[in-house]
Order: sequence, then structure tokens, then C-alpha cells
Amino acid sequence: MKKNYLMTPGPTPVPEDIRKEMAKPIIHHRTKEYQAIFKDVTEGLKKIFKTSNDVFTFTSSGTGAMEASIVNVLSPGDKIIVVRGGKFGERFGEIAKAYGVEVIPLDVEWGSAPKPEAIKELLAKNPDVKAVYTTLCETSTATVYDIETIGKIVKETPALFIVDVISGLGADDFQNDKWGVDIAIGGSQKGLMIPPGLSFCSVSEKAWKAVEASKLPKFYLNFKKYKKAMTNTDTPFTSAITLVIGLKKAIELINSKGVDNVIAEHKKQALAYRAAAKALGLDLFSKSPSFAVTAISVSSGMNADELIKLLKSEFGVTFAGGQEQLKGKIFRVAHMGGIDEEHTIESIKALEGALAKLGFKFKAGAALDAANKILKG
Amino acid sequence: MKKNYLMTPGPTPVPEDIRKEMAKPIIHHRTKEYQAIFKDVTEGLKKIFKTSNDVFTFTSSGTGAMEASIVNVLSPGDKIIVVRGGKFGERFGEIAKAYGVEVIPLDVEWGSAPKPEAIKELLAKNPDVKAVYTTLCETSTATVYDIETIGKIVKETPALFIVDVISGLGADDFQNDKWGVDIAIGGSQKGLMIPPGLSFCSVSEKAWKAVEASKLPKFYLNFKKYKKAMTNTDTPFTSAITLVIGLKKAIELINSKGVDNVIAEHKKQALAYRAAAKALGLDLFSKSPSFAVTAISVSSGMNADELIKLLKSEFGVTFAGGQEQLKGKIFRVAHMGGIDEEHTIESIKALEGALAKLGFKFKAGAALDAANKILKG
Repeated sequence: MKKNYLMTPGPTPVPEDIRKEMAKPIIHHRTKEYQAIFKDVTEGLKKIFKTSNDVFTFTSSGTGAMEASIVNVLSPGDKIIVVRGGKFGERFGEIAKAYGVEVIPLDVEWGSAPKPEAIKELLAKNPDVKAVYTTLCETSTATVYDIETIGKIVKETPALFIVDVISGLGADDFQNDKWGVDIAIGGSQKGLMIPPGLSFCSVSEKAWKAVEASKLPKFYLNFKKYKKAMTNTDTPFTSAITLVIGLKKAIELINSKGVDNVIAEHKKQALAYRAAAKALGLDLFSKSPSFAVTAISVSSGMNADELIKLLKSEFGVTFAGGQEQLKGKIFRVAHMGGIDEEHTIESIKALEGALAKLGFKFKAGAALDAANKILKG
Repeated sequence: MKKNYLMTPGPTPVPEDIRKEMAKPIIHHRTKEYQAIFKDVTEGLKKIFKTSNDVFTFTSSGTGAMEASIVNVLSPGDKIIVVRGGKFGERFGEIAKAYGVEVIPLDVEWGSAPKPEAIKELLAKNPDVKAVYTTLCETSTATVYDIETIGKIVKETPALFIVDVISGLGADDFQNDKWGVDIAIGGSQKGLMIPPGLSFCSVSEKAWKAVEASKLPKFYLNFKKYKKAMTNTDTPFTSAITLVIGLKKAIELINSKGVDNVIAEHKKQALAYRAAAKALGLDLFSKSPSFAVTAISVSSGMNADELIKLLKSEFGVTFAGGQEQLKGKIFRVAHMGGIDEEHTIESIKALEGALAKLGFKFKAGAALDAANKILKG
């Protein structure tokens, strides 16, 4: 059987040890046995987020937790700053509008990171802003933002600093508390290596004060219900038991290596891919490339979606395409979660094979050599 | 290794074939392969709900879909009737209040079913009511409601008829379209035999008109987003891929037997349990007992939670206890999903063993004989 290599920025491959753990007979969630698992998961997540704040687990996709980060701290008519430099930044704005929150956009060219100074200026011009919403790694453009510097700026104001770390967590450096993040939003199917279905919010003391003042309606995503249940190491609504059990195993795998070592591994793979792209004469799309995912522009005359189709059908390698305005123009390769060196090497071989089939001219083997130099170096 | 028997009304045991299917390497959700799976699941759910309406799949616990059934069809200040005869009926009221919807309660004694006539009277007194919210099987009291008769009454009015079928589906008879249900809410970890994490809403034409008029804010649970994505056999937000793959297998298992035959099997197990309880001299708690779950009152002087603890620690059998006002007074045994005759027989043996240990007097073997008579008859 041909091996398949899933290289998409979520879901990422789920290691076999985790899949086996999730395939055991199910247990009930209102039991001491499950409470112990849930406690380990919550403590483990805190280590990965690098926070001593509460971290809540929702049964939802990442968008559910993004919505939670809005409905729990805002009231109708509140003003927020939203950095819009890709699909996921834009989503924050869409959710806010659905709830009658006024959005002050900071529009950034897709593939660029926002200038921290621009956020400082917007905050100075709008002192009544309740929160700044942005992204660690904007998955749609494979761009990492300078959360540390932005955090320092927001910390000097009454505004909350709310960061979507869904695709960045465990691949790009992230330090929740040191960087002054009030709510960080995570997802299960990226660096955390389990299937989609869980999302997470860290919640700071500063954020809790906003929770008390918030008037937006909520029930399923209400932080207070999760906080209350947490006193009994429990969730307010039925937990996605098997996913939490898988997450316990994933966290064990990550924390046994140390999250910084895991990040270093993924960084190496990202750098190897950048070297391979260069050797092929292809450009990175992003001006601030993330270590979680790399976006590569195809040369003119080539359609990235055709390349992706060929890679999947003939080489068993799954890349992600560009979304919206980037459709057909880029392909995206992830380096997070269960994606390892074997994935990186085999997918570069396949990329060379597919490009050759499409008549693209390059020096055979050069990409692999360039990547190997970094991986083995 | 001692075998364990999980007899709780959610999660129910997940059959091995389904667990194996979910343990396969994960696939990406924006692919033809996954679309085909999602299409089969959606069509299969329609057969089980007995509906030709849209059926949407959410990544959330059942409460998420309950919230969806409120935020998608109502506006602030709207009036609804909520049947409150247990924990889950009450939850509808709590969600509605969180969204500024006025609740006209129909309070029913826990363990009793609402009188359809009482709903008719309330509707006549309040012609501006937008919807009636109730439950097929109120899991907390193991009570089945007469949805067919209530449906006929609501159909004669402009109000929507919205039914939580989370624990009843696949065990108690349910006919979405024939009974005039506008929104039915399902969950994954009950009769559908997969782990928790997915929930469902069927949505009628009458409900769609209310969706157009609805002014309550929503984003993650917005029906319109699911409807739009469904035109491409897709979900608007990342699907809980492994759970949907498990659900495909579960639906195949159910539909290969026929949902009515599956319901008949669970009914037989419920009747066997009722006979066993009678042989032990124990009473059913509910005056309108469900076939999905049976609640049995312990005799005075006994604490149901002690019995449950003993069954778990010494016999490997997990029952559910009573919730809130019923804590310690009842134990609940489920008959849905992956719970089969072996579970029923072995748990009755264990129940006899545990009762004997607690000093309860009864004719040894009588419960098992009574149950077997029904199971083999």
C-alpha cells in the first residue's frame, strides 16, 4: 500500500500511539478516571501555552473559541481593533459584526505582518477600544505576526489583547504570560496532533474583569460555566471524551520532549522547505514566514491547484491550496504536529516529481539536497 | 482482564468496528473523499430522523445544537413555551433567558410526561408564542413524552415545534416529518453509538421562515452558514473528521438492520429491565417510561449512589445516578446505542450481586429469569 503524507495546516497526521489510545473502549466523563485525564490535559495545555491562567476546553472547531473570545468580554456597541491580513483575521471581524460590535480594522496586505506601530497609533486615536484581536500565525498566508511587540503596546492600555494561536501553537514561539496575552485561542488539529473537534481559550485576570462587565448573550460558550465546572475538574457540557483522551497522549508526547524542542524540530523542517523552494527557484509568498506552515508561490503560467491535484493523485502527498484571492497562486505545506522529517523529505521528492511532470525546469535533486543539508546539519 | 459494561445514557459503548474505523490515519476534510463520507452521513441521518428536511451537523455537544434551535429562529423579546419536566427541559429555558427570550414554562412533575391538552391551553392563551420547546426522552427522569400528539396541536398554530431527541433517537419511536417537528436536535453519543462531540438539527420549511425573521446574534451555530456549505456537501467550519467517519460506520450498522428493528431491540432490553426491577420489588421512577433509558427507584434506606459505586468498583458495571433533586434516589440504566443483550444480562447479574452485598432481600435469580423470559421470548 502506498504511504500517504498529509502536509496540510490542519488536520495534521495523528500519530499511531494517539489513534490507538482513542480507539480503546469509551469511558464515562463523570468519573474520577476521566477527571484525572481532564486535569492532566488542562495542566499540560498550560505548559504548552506557557501560562498560569485558566485554560478552558470547548467541544467545537477553532471558530467556536474565537466566538467565545468575543461574546465573553464585550457588550453591544463596543469597539475593537481587528488585524485583517488573511482569512482568519477577517473572521474575527465577521463574528464581531454578527454581535453588534464595532470593528476598527487594521488592514494588512495578505502575506505581510502588521506593523506594531500602526496598532499603537490606532489605540491612541481610539482610547475607548475594548480589545485588540489578532493572530499568531495567519494560516491562510503562512505569516507570523510579532505578538511579543504588539503585546507590550496593548499592555500599556486598558484594552485586552486577544490572539488566535490555533495554527501557530507548538510550531511558532508563543509565550502567553510573558507576552501579555489576555485570551489565546487554540485548536486541536494543528500542533496538538489530534483530530479536529476541540478548541481552547486561556483567560487572564484582566480578561476576567471584562467577563464580569460583558453583556453579549452566550450560553454554550460561556466562560463562567467552564470556570465553575473546572472547580470540579469537569466541563459544563458533555466533553468530547475520546478527543480529550487523545490529547492527553499528545501532550505527553510533546512535554516528554519539551515544547521548545518540538518547536525547534518544526522550525528545522520549515527552514528545510524554504531552502528547497529556493533551490527550485520558487518564492515564499509571505514576507514574514511562519514556522508552522510555508506558503510557496508557483511561477507564472502554473496553477497551484493543478500541482496539488497531481501530488495527491500520483504521489500520495496532500498539500493545501490558497484560499480566496490566493486560490491557484500558492500551495501551503505545514510543519506542525505529526508532520516529521520523513514527511518533509518524501514530500520534497514528490514535489520535484510533480513539477517535472508539469514541465517545470529545475536542477533535479537540488531541492532535496538543500533540505537535507538543513535537516542533517 | 475483567470486562466492563458501560450502561449510561450517553456516552454509550462504541462498537469495535466503529472504533477501528476512527483509528485509521486521518484524512483532510476539503477533499472529494471526505465530501462523499459527509454526504452519506447526512443522508443516513435523514433516514434515522425520518425526515426529508435539511439535517445539519455541528461540532459541539448536544447543548450547542439546543442553543442553535433558539438563536436561529427567535428574536429578543419573543415568547416561547418550554416544557420543564427534568434537567434538559429546564436547559431550554436557561438558554432562552440568556438570549432575552421570554419563557412561558409548562412545569411538569419530574417523572411525568406533559399533558398535550395543557400545551393546547397555553397556546390558546398566548397566541403570540413563537415556538414550543420540549423533549422526546427527558434523560434525567427516563421519561418519554407524547411528541406525536403534541405535534398535532402545535401544527394548528403559527408556532414552531422544537424537540430535543438527543437521548431518544434510535431507541424511542420518532418520526420527524409525520409528527410535524420543525427542529429536532440530536447528539452523537447516544443511540448513534459514537463518542460525544457531534450534534444535529433537522430544519423544516416552516422553521426556515423563522430563520429569515430571526434577529438573535449568532455565528458558529448559524444555520444559514451550514445551509450554504451544504450545497458543496461541506461544513462552514472544520468538521470533527474522525467522529463523522465513525458516524458513517454507525449509520451503516443501524441502517443495515433498519432503524425500526434497532428500536425494537432496545425496546426489548428496556422491557427486560422493567421485568427485572419488578422481580426485585423495585419501582420504575417514571410514570411514562422511555425505551432509551430506565430509571429505577431504590427502596427507602438505600442510597442509589452507593449502589452505583459498588457496581462500578466490584462488578465493572457503570450505571448513571440521579441528577439534582433525584441524586441518591434513582439509578438509570440505558438501552440505546451499543448497549446489547449481553450488557443487559450481565448488568442484571451484577445488580443482583451488588444488592445482595448491600443486604437487600430478594429472591436470587428472579430478576435474571424475568429479563431472560422477555429477551428470549
